[in-house]
Order: sequence, then structure tokens, then C-alpha cells
Amino acid sequence: MVRSIYMAGPEVFLPNARAIMEEKTRLAREAGFRAICPGDLDIPPAPTKKDFGLSISRVDEEMMLEADAIIANLTPFRGLAADVGTAFELGFMCALGKPVTAYTNVPESHYARTVAYYEGRVTRGEDGYIRGTDGLSLEDFEMIDNLMLHGGVERRGGLVAIGSAAPDALYTDLAAFRRCLAHLKDRFA
Amino acid sequence: MVRSIYMAGPEVFLPNARAIMEEKTRLAREAGFRAICPGDLDIPPAPTKKDFGLSISRVDEEMMLEADAIIANLTPFRGLAADVGTAFELGFMCALGKPVTAYTNVPESHYARTVAYYEGRVTRGEDGYIRGTDGLSLEDFEMIDNLMLHGGVERRGGLVAIGSAAPDALYTDLAAFRRCLAHLKDRFA
Repeated sequence: MVRSIYMAGPEVFLPNARAIMEEKTRLAREAGFRAICPGDLDIPPAPTKKDFGLSISRVDEEMMLEADAIIANLTPFRGLAADVGTAFELGFMCALGKPVTAYTNVPESHYARTVAYYEGRVTRGEDGYIRGTDGLSLEDFEMIDNLMLHGGVERRGGLVAIGSAAPDALYTDLAAFRRCLAHLKDRFA
Repeated sequence: MVRSIYMAGPEVFLPNARAIMEEKTRLAREAGFRAICPGDLDIPPAPTKKDFGLSISRVDEEMMLEADAIIANLTPFRGLAADVGTAFELGFMCALGKPVTAYTNVPESHYARTVAYYEGRVTRGEDGYIRGTDGLSLEDFEMIDNLMLHGGVERRGGLVAIGSAAPDALYTDLAAFRRCLAHLKDRFA
């Protein structure tokens, strides 16, 4: 029986999104899996922009219901944190009880990146919390992103693979992705 | 029967997180609900930072399994998009099939905020996609955030309440939150 994997990540926003998805699909096939790739490539036209967005939401959710597992690319996207669409999808698959894995191509921890966001200006208050200049507290849990994401994967025995990609290959380097595939191959063996 | 609502949002990172949660709890009670609030306030100590983070993840997931509905605060957090922990939780509750609602205290659409992120330097390519200076495409679906979040709520008949808070009340203004409460009150009536 061929298991299927939902490929979540912000690479759908790249100019060469289709090429990346094809490479992920090829690597998944090599590992014995069928890839299920989100995106708006095969969504029928809709009367309004909103309706089109709703159709993509529906199709992507149906793909997740069909998939046997997820590999979520949590590489920071347009700022400090993972793509929120990918975070939603990871939570969705966690709730469904399906095997979950995640990777990032940025080796710095969530805490280190948040300190950098505040340009180092963080202080520990009397309440014990470390806070930025805006008063918001920092998570310091040796995780790659918010604890619900990283914790949701690890608590289920899933792999959180940490890669280190060149800046121009932030969303296209697939070394950490391959480790997730290998993990799922063992998981379903 | 008193229904319970999971209160998801980045206000847990505020210095006065407890006060905000108490106010949300009070408003929920007025509307006939019991509030279930995440946070690390009642998490037992753990041997490592990682273990403590994993414990919070477990407790928060258990709270969601117990809750009858969610109100997700999707107000942008440390940048362009919603808090990724909240996005995860919204996806989790969507997958569980529980009533979902969301609000934001920033009236500008996801598209408008992303154009501002690129300081207006976005262009439509030959492939029809609008892209920023880094080549990443912009979602333009008349939604408050990524289509999986906004679409996940609307497609289920949930309310996406759009508020407009003063800058110093971005995470504490509860006008849009109250609209979500009223919506859920009707939903469960």
C-alpha cells in the first residue's frame, strides 16, 4: 500500500513553485510515497477573489483528509516565524492523529531569532519572563518555533529536522526535507 | 449545559496576560460560556526548558480537546501575520469539527499589509501572479490573513470579526472579541 504525504510549506509562493513541488514529489516517490501538493494550480475559476480563496482552502483541507502524513516546512517566512498557513495545516494534521514531521532550513532557534528581532534588547523582568522592548515575552524552549508547532510534532514522536540552507536556497534546499522522508519511511515500515 | 470556549491568541505574551484573560473570562461568562485559557501559569516544573515547552503543548492541546469552540485572535504579531501558535490551534479545532471564530484588531487586509511589507514594490508577472521584490507571490483574496485561516473559519460558517484598535490596545481591545462571543451565543442557541 502506497502511503501519501501532504507537502506543506511556503514554497508555494515561489516563482518556481511547480518545479520545487515536482522535486519533492520525485523524492517522495523514491522513498515509496505518493506526494499530495497544495496550491492553486488546479482550482476551478470562481466569481470573486474571496470565493477563489475559499475554494483553495477547501481543496487543501480535502487533500489533508486524504493524506496519511504531513511534512511541514517551518522555515521562517516574511519575518520571524513559520508561514501561518503551514502552521494551520500542521495543527490540522495533529488533530487528525496522522504522523507529523517538520523541518526548517534556518538553524537558529526560535529564541535566538526573536532576540535578533529585538536587536538584542531583551530584559528579564521581576516576574521571571524575558521581554522585548514592546513588553511581549519571549519563548525560550530550545525549539525551532512556537511551542505548539515544535511540541506538537515532537510529542507525537515526529521528527523536527533542522537544516542550514544558503540564503538563496532558503525554500528550495531539500536536505532537511529528505530527513523527514526517511523518518516517515521508518515510521510506516 | 454550559459550553466552553478556548481563548487562543498572542495576548499570552503580554505583561498583563493574566488580566486580559480574566477580562475575556468575565465577558465569556456574561455570554453564558466558560472560558478555557491557555498559558503556562499552571504548568508543573520540568527538568529542562524543552520539557517545560512540551508540557505546555500537551496541556494546551488537552484544553482544546475539552473545549466546545474556539475564538482565535489573529491580530498580526511581531510582523505581518497572525501568531503561528494561534494558527496551529485554529487548524487543530477546525480538524476536530468544533465551531470556530476569529478576530483581528487590524482592519487592513492581508494583501494590503503584505504590499506595505514590500513598501509598495510589488509587480504582476507574466504568469499573472503579483510578487514582491524577493519573488514571493502575494495572496489577494480579500481576507485578513492566509486563506487557510480565514477560509477555514468562513467555510465552517464561523465569524471573522474585523476590528480597529488603537496602537496601544492592539492586543487588549476586546470589541471584535465580543462580536465573536455574540456569534457563538447564537450558534449554540
